[in-house]
Amino acid sequence: MSTNSYVRLKSRLLDEASTTALAETFKVLGDPTRVRILDALTHAEVPVCDLAEVLGLTQSAVSHQLRLLRGMRLVRSRRDGQHIYYTLDDQHIVKLFEQGLEHVLERRA
Amino acid sequence: MSTNSYVRLKSRLLDEASTTALAETFKVLGDPTRVRILDALTHAEVPVCDLAEVLGLTQSAVSHQLRLLRGMRLVRSRRDGQHIYYTLDDQHIVKLFEQGLEHVLERRA
Repeated sequence: MSTNSYVRLKSRLLDEASTTALAETFKVLGDPTRVRILDALTHAEVPVCDLAEVLGLTQSAVSHQLRLLRGMRLVRSRRDGQHIYYTLDDQHIVKLFEQGLEHVLERRA
Repeated sequence: MSTNSYVRLKSRLLDEASTTALAETFKVLGDPTRVRILDALTHAEVPVCDLAEVLGLTQSAVSHQLRLLRGMRLVRSRRDGQHIYYTLDDQHIVKLFEQGLEHVLERRA
């Protein structure tokens, strides 16, 4: 590698805080239950009770994971009367999930 | 949730194999050293020795992580003479990484 290329590449690398935050985000996504929750939320805005029912999990288990996902701003919530509805936080998360899924499906093809 | 909505959502959920594969992919990405390697490879096709140098890691440590990343088809390699060059496997990985990074940068903003 020429000195120029080395300096150019080195200068473009992520700083430590971004690296850590990105790794933490992917780590939170790296769990089958959380993937199932995010998958369900790609299709609809769903209240906690229905999310638990459709995934065959307890409400307490789903709430625990949703708190974690909300802490990483991967999902957001909206209260409507007695129900709290969840959805993916924004289009980055939708696309992140889609890209990951396409990768996995291609790998299996 | 109406019975119709329930059945529709349930029928659209990912199968178990895809859920597991997707969670495993995110899990592999959820490590700061691997994030640093992927970050460097978003900018250039880089041989192992230069990757080690620019990241301040041993070649053996970098090679170990690259094998793991290649096993998940997150990176691919190309031999050119004595050097093995690495790059991100395809556009899904580039976009996956970009979306994750934009999410993290927005969260901090």
